[in-house]
Amino acid sequence: MIQLYGFTGSGNCYKPALLMQQLQLPFTWIEVNILNGESRTPEFLAKNANGKIPLLEPEPGHFLAESNAMLCYLAEGSRFFPADRWQRAKILEWLFFEQYSHEPYIATVRFWVHYQKRGDELAVKIAETMPRGYAALAVMEQQLSQTPFLAGAEYSIADIALFAYTHVADQGGFDLTPYPAVQAWLHRVMTQPGYVPMVV
Amino acid sequence: MIQLYGFTGSGNCYKPALLMQQLQLPFTWIEVNILNGESRTPEFLAKNANGKIPLLEPEPGHFLAESNAMLCYLAEGSRFFPADRWQRAKILEWLFFEQYSHEPYIATVRFWVHYQKRGDELAVKIAETMPRGYAALAVMEQQLSQTPFLAGAEYSIADIALFAYTHVADQGGFDLTPYPAVQAWLHRVMTQPGYVPMVV
Repeated sequence: MIQLYGFTGSGNCYKPALLMQQLQLPFTWIEVNILNGESRTPEFLAKNANGKIPLLEPEPGHFLAESNAMLCYLAEGSRFFPADRWQRAKILEWLFFEQYSHEPYIATVRFWVHYQKRGDELAVKIAETMPRGYAALAVMEQQLSQTPFLAGAEYSIADIALFAYTHVADQGGFDLTPYPAVQAWLHRVMTQPGYVPMVV
Repeated sequence: MIQLYGFTGSGNCYKPALLMQQLQLPFTWIEVNILNGESRTPEFLAKNANGKIPLLEPEPGHFLAESNAMLCYLAEGSRFFPADRWQRAKILEWLFFEQYSHEPYIATVRFWVHYQKRGDELAVKIAETMPRGYAALAVMEQQLSQTPFLAGAEYSIADIALFAYTHVADQGGFDLTPYPAVQAWLHRVMTQPGYVPMVV
């Protein structure tokens, strides 16, 4: 049985969990409380030297870190990561966009505000960080004004990756009202077969 | 002919350029001076809404952003991105690690110090950022103490991705002395067939 080490409420951990539900792939969730430092213990660091969750263990003793690497690995051979070379390239483009231009702003502000309750204390830092999150939403809005899903006509792991933190961006104080195509896409993702909500 | 829009001295732009040299794939380099805002003009934003370089145009009017997505796309079918599913997963793990845990610290400090000459002005910010760069180097050191290349026995696009900014980390003030396995690996990469140095 595949094991997934994750922290409830983490969008990065939700990504492979949602995909495995949609692939009807059974797995066991092992809770790792990052707020208590449980991803930095010697035991966990022996599994992932980078000390981060999620961590996938598809076979005993075989560990894979990085949520978007998991999406590629798990979706291989399925309609969520099609074989067409250009289609795959565009999906990967969105996966890297998510980790570089979206997650560090949208997920990070949410973490400060929603989990650490430091919204007031970090007000200046948050005001500096939010415009980069909005810039990422604007890039998504432009694409989703043209195609129903991020990589084109079909739902793929690119949508799972970007959905994870976009649909809870409001918990960090982001206002999605100016992004109607993003909002319509959120609804489209939530009505996909096998969709399960994130536990927050 | 493949076109690559890039900024000389950018490690992200060097990645696909190095790979294409090693694949013996001819391409044209189009210089985009990001210091003059040339990646934020309406003309460039029409090619890449995210306003970033590198940008690959493998066929006229077909654009691919994100350096590591380019590596996957270009290396498809070659020994630099082998077909084995687990091997690919481990390579992708390093590619995402690079963009999330390495580049934002090591490349960013180098940009401030080497290009913007703001080392003194940003001293506090740099002191806060560097430990996360060193943490990334420590993760690499642990892997490279066990295997000659990041994803195992063979040179792959994972090595190209991590080499790009690691080999010029000293330009941001990073000291690689405590990382002997990383240093030996840098030398190993530089002696690969088809290796070309980055123009800085």
